[in-house]
Amino acid sequence: MKLVLKISGKFFDEENIENFISLRNTIKNIVNEGHRLAIVSGGGSTARKYIKIGRELGVNEAHLDLLGIWASRLNAYLLTFILSDLSYMKVPENLEEFIEKWESEKVVITGGFQPGQSTATVAALVSEAIAADYLILATNVDGVYDKDPRYNKDAKLLSKLNTETLKKILETSQSVKAGTYELLDPLAIKIIERSKIKVIVMNYKRLNKILDIIHGKDIGSIIEPM
Amino acid sequence: MKLVLKISGKFFDEENIENFISLRNTIKNIVNEGHRLAIVSGGGSTARKYIKIGRELGVNEAHLDLLGIWASRLNAYLLTFILSDLSYMKVPENLEEFIEKWESEKVVITGGFQPGQSTATVAALVSEAIAADYLILATNVDGVYDKDPRYNKDAKLLSKLNTETLKKILETSQSVKAGTYELLDPLAIKIIERSKIKVIVMNYKRLNKILDIIHGKDIGSIIEPM
Amino acid sequence: MKLVLKISGKFFDEENIENFISLRNTIKNIVNEGHRLAIVSGGGSTARKYIKIGRELGVNEAHLDLLGIWASRLNAYLLTFILSDLSYMKVPENLEEFIEKWESEKVVITGGFQPGQSTATVAALVSEAIAADYLILATNVDGVYDKDPRYNKDAKLLSKLNTETLKKILETSQSVKAGTYELLDPLAIKIIERSKIKVIVMNYKRLNKILDIIHGKDIGSIIEPM
Amino acid sequence: MKLVLKISGKFFDEENIENFISLRNTIKNIVNEGHRLAIVSGGGSTARKYIKIGRELGVNEAHLDLLGIWASRLNAYLLTFILSDLSYMKVPENLEEFIEKWESEKVVITGGFQPGQSTATVAALVSEAIAADYLILATNVDGVYDKDPRYNKDAKLLSKLNTETLKKILETSQSVKAGTYELLDPLAIKIIERSKIKVIVMNYKRLNKILDIIHGKDIGSIIEPM
Amino acid sequence: MKLVLKISGKFFDEENIENFISLRNTIKNIVNEGHRLAIVSGGGSTARKYIKIGRELGVNEAHLDLLGIWASRLNAYLLTFILSDLSYMKVPENLEEFIEKWESEKVVITGGFQPGQSTATVAALVSEAIAADYLILATNVDGVYDKDPRYNKDAKLLSKLNTETLKKILETSQSVKAGTYELLDPLAIKIIERSKIKVIVMNYKRLNKILDIIHGKDIGSIIEPM
Amino acid sequence: MKLVLKISGKFFDEENIENFISLRNTIKNIVNEGHRLAIVSGGGSTARKYIKIGRELGVNEAHLDLLGIWASRLNAYLLTFILSDLSYMKVPENLEEFIEKWESEKVVITGGFQPGQSTATVAALVSEAIAADYLILATNVDGVYDKDPRYNKDAKLLSKLNTETLKKILETSQSVKAGTYELLDPLAIKIIERSKIKVIVMNYKRLNKILDIIHGKDIGSIIEPM
Repeated sequence: MKLVLKISGKFFDEENIENFISLRNTIKNIVNEGHRLAIVSGGGSTARKYIKIGRELGVNEAHLDLLGIWASRLNAYLLTFILSDLSYMKVPENLEEFIEKWESEKVVITGGFQPGQSTATVAALVSEAIAADYLILATNVDGVYDKDPRYNKDAKLLSKLNTETLKKILETSQSVKAGTYELLDPLAIKIIERSKIKVIVMNYKRLNKILDIIHGKDIGSIIEPM
Repeated sequence: MKLVLKISGKFFDEENIENFISLRNTIKNIVNEGHRLAIVSGGGSTARKYIKIGRELGVNEAHLDLLGIWASRLNAYLLTFILSDLSYMKVPENLEEFIEKWESEKVVITGGFQPGQSTATVAALVSEAIAADYLILATNVDGVYDKDPRYNKDAKLLSKLNTETLKKILETSQSVKAGTYELLDPLAIKIIERSKIKVIVMNYKRLNKILDIIHGKDIGSIIEPM
Repeated sequence: MKLVLKISGKFFDEENIENFISLRNTIKNIVNEGHRLAIVSGGGSTARKYIKIGRELGVNEAHLDLLGIWASRLNAYLLTFILSDLSYMKVPENLEEFIEKWESEKVVITGGFQPGQSTATVAALVSEAIAADYLILATNVDGVYDKDPRYNKDAKLLSKLNTETLKKILETSQSVKAGTYELLDPLAIKIIERSKIKVIVMNYKRLNKILDIIHGKDIGSIIEPM
Repeated sequence: MKLVLKISGKFFDEENIENFISLRNTIKNIVNEGHRLAIVSGGGSTARKYIKIGRELGVNEAHLDLLGIWASRLNAYLLTFILSDLSYMKVPENLEEFIEKWESEKVVITGGFQPGQSTATVAALVSEAIAADYLILATNVDGVYDKDPRYNKDAKLLSKLNTETLKKILETSQSVKAGTYELLDPLAIKIIERSKIKVIVMNYKRLNKILDIIHGKDIGSIIEPM
Repeated sequence: MKLVLKISGKFFDEENIENFISLRNTIKNIVNEGHRLAIVSGGGSTARKYIKIGRELGVNEAHLDLLGIWASRLNAYLLTFILSDLSYMKVPENLEEFIEKWESEKVVITGGFQPGQSTATVAALVSEAIAADYLILATNVDGVYDKDPRYNKDAKLLSKLNTETLKKILETSQSVKAGTYELLDPLAIKIIERSKIKVIVMNYKRLNKILDIIHGKDIGSIIEPM
Repeated sequence: MKLVLKISGKFFDEENIENFISLRNTIKNIVNEGHRLAIVSGGGSTARKYIKIGRELGVNEAHLDLLGIWASRLNAYLLTFILSDLSYMKVPENLEEFIEKWESEKVVITGGFQPGQSTATVAALVSEAIAADYLILATNVDGVYDKDPRYNKDAKLLSKLNTETLKKILETSQSVKAGTYELLDPLAIKIIERSKIKVIVMNYKRLNKILDIIHGKDIGSIIEPM
């Protein structure tokens, strides 16, 4: 199986060693079972810190985005060195570089690619290029909710939805938007739809469950492309 | 002044030597007046030919886009060699490469950057990165019309509009959509808006009028970001 | 076995999907039998189109050759994406890059390398660098003839010849020259001779016969180096 | 004049916008007077944060150093974008890349180069390669002291010293060592000595005084190579 | 097992074909037993020749070092082509490039990396980055002696010593210094100590004994890090 | 004016410091007068030494050529560092890289490009790509002779000849061939003819006369393309 794992920048912000160990063990198991894996890391608080300084100094939007991209690459190098016996040791800086390396490596880890584009879009582009079986979005919530779970006690986790439903949630519910937008922006959804990529949203505290996904169990929310 | 000139793939399809000569003369004049210029070329019929063969053979969407990108780079190399005394002689293959070269060169010519992205988006990204005074879209019509001029005799050229109006034209009028979409897709508009880029749409048969734009005259349609 | 397959630009000009499918199946079979393969693609009509425009605009010979080289690389990318599960995904742009990639990949696909040099010379250089068992020239005729088959009904296919004979045919018979020259120019022959490379000329409509060559059958014309 | 400016990682840790503005103005003035400038940025707290996580996860020393290097490059990109109208827009990743770019650019900004090597050594290597008139070490103290000023009220700033004296201070006084070591490690001193590079240590809060250095005034401590 | 083999420039100066054949056979055997190998070649007399000309012409120290580095890369390419069926075919030019290639290749051959740094330091950095089981220094003497064997008939080969002892020999005995310094300079020793790398010094005329080292026998001198 | 200067490997073999100083002064004068210069260096005895070892060890022809190319690049780096205030500091490794750098640099220095090709061909390709006013071949004889001057006391220097005459001398006179072949091989002549490049053959001991060539005086032999 070919998997793409997008890891939220929040994963790095927590600086939780247990989470990193769990991630490493999970990836070792995935590779040992003969699967291949692309990982895309977000930029998190390191990105925000540098963007904030840059913005105060009048740096333009394209260059601010590049600061965020370099921060996400720093996170990607951290994962690379933690997985140094499995991973390709250079973080690709654009999709062509990624594609070039994918065929000969078991694990390739990347950060952002280009201004004007979220790391979720990077993950969608990578999924399309390698015809991934699943794009897994690992974040700090358990999946996609019908309402924002931070403000609504009765918010229900959607175990299955399609991209049309997702777009409606994004459009109609302002409160959900902010939290979910990070998961998938419109360009990412467009790519998911045109190439029929299956997406799973799950909590990065439960990464050890990825093997269950491979074995066919339902974890978090599954988003099916329309 | 810093200009970005996006040249439609149709310009290359016509194989009209006079158009190329006019383009070369115009660019020489622009540079002689001390301005700097980035050019983004579309892929045109060469792109469509290779994408068609690839699609019949089951090539995936990301790789089909890359065929189109390589075709647009071939068009960019044609311009590069025609302008060999002015232009940087290598076609940048992503935004970081473009940014790296821009500061030390008078003219930098590029094609597409990445799958899932039009060359209009490339032109918008480039405009943002260099803080361009104008993004000029040179195509085979004289500007933006309120209705599709191919089907509506009473279609009126809009000499000035904003991105909100443009988005409405794109959404409401199906017939206009196809023709205009090539000019600016949603991602390109998003970038134009966030960085307040002034856009001009003009006919590539009148490229010699670009100096008039620089000197403050109105040509084609001007789109102002909201 | 290590093979180099030079595919004439005419193969791409025909836009014949059946030919592409046959090529793909053949290469899969070759790789499945444990052999390794370098492919060199010609530039064909795409190259000629861009060179023609460039020449009318006064582009110099070196840059015209580069337009042809970029066109041949576009053909090479088409093959790369058609064979994306077997091939190295970047088209090498010079011999050192090719050599760097060859050891770790099953199939490496390239176009032209440098001005002043045919893709036949590229194929000969590649054959020498990897010590190929055969250099196979796939073109739109069945092999080398003693006279030009287009003008001579009694032209005879030569099933075996050496490079001395080939050179004589090229020198003495003006009419044959044009058609054959594309197969092997003097520099390519020099390399074939100094490194004793076995060359086979065959029709690209019969690519499925390459496995027969590997298994020792005679196909097309075989040229032995002197 | 050719200057190398090494900026301590602490400069970035303070996130003090005024310091950045002062740095930008100073560099503009230096360039406007016709001088050229290489800048080397340290890694600071961003480096320490990633190294700490990596060490807890058993990452080896070479890879830990690389995390610090990538953090220093992130700091270097921040400076690059703040100075985007003056600086070369890519951060060189080794000395050969730096040398390649230096001749054609007014300002080149770099971070670390290689494991096992401080950014002070990078600054010394860069100074040697470009035959810099001065290597300026901008840090959070006013210069080199005979004792550690944090613990000794009577510590005296040395306005002039040579590398022999510096080495003795480093060897004999344990308390000074830690603070000063960051300034110049043994390899950096070796390079400074073999190429007779003049070194100035000054406070990064007084960067506006660099023009005074150029004009011959004494600022901070000057270290003369033996 | 993972080994780093540093080959003295003197090995190349001798132009002894038998030594090269022995080296090739040894490496084939090492690889056949499933081990992996990084090789670092010195610059030898080629380096000295170019540095001498450069120095007479006033070339600066950084550039003189680069001449030596390019000479060592030429030696590395000689080994690469001699081992063309086993080795990665491009000589990495810095540690990041080396690390990038190491995971997917059985043998990677490199020369110098950077001015101000011996090829012994390169070998130590490489050993640290790949967590080598042994760093083998192949030179023209049989190991480390307590006195300089060229001047002292009673010099004794030390079959085992630690880095503290080595540093004392280097410091106290001027006559030994010159010969031994080439083996390990202070920076190399620092890296060996911080990453606990086991070092073996042996004669390059006995390279066929490396397999004995792998199998646990004592050859030459073994230096243990403190 | 745009000049290409091909310097024979023999220039480097002589290790004559006066020759290097004369070369440096000449190039400074050329640049000071506003001309631009590409330099191509041969491989000389360094190339022959490495090729000889490689051949005895069974290295194939393509890789032997690469050893010669790397040796010529080492010579090119020597010139680069000697001219470090004028020259682009990286030796381009193929024609596309050379073309990329030419526009923005006053002096670009290169060695060989590719197996199967002399450095004279490199110089012809470079001359064509930049539309050089003159290609100057600096060697250890004073120009082209009607007979081999080493064996014929009455050999006459030809102050003017065309490529047809040159080819006849090369074909008919075996004794002249060896010495002259190094100047221009058939591929180099083909390129010179197709792009009408003016060639001058002169002694590298008289490089200070190049300014006379620029000013219209006749030096050595001039070869005019047919």
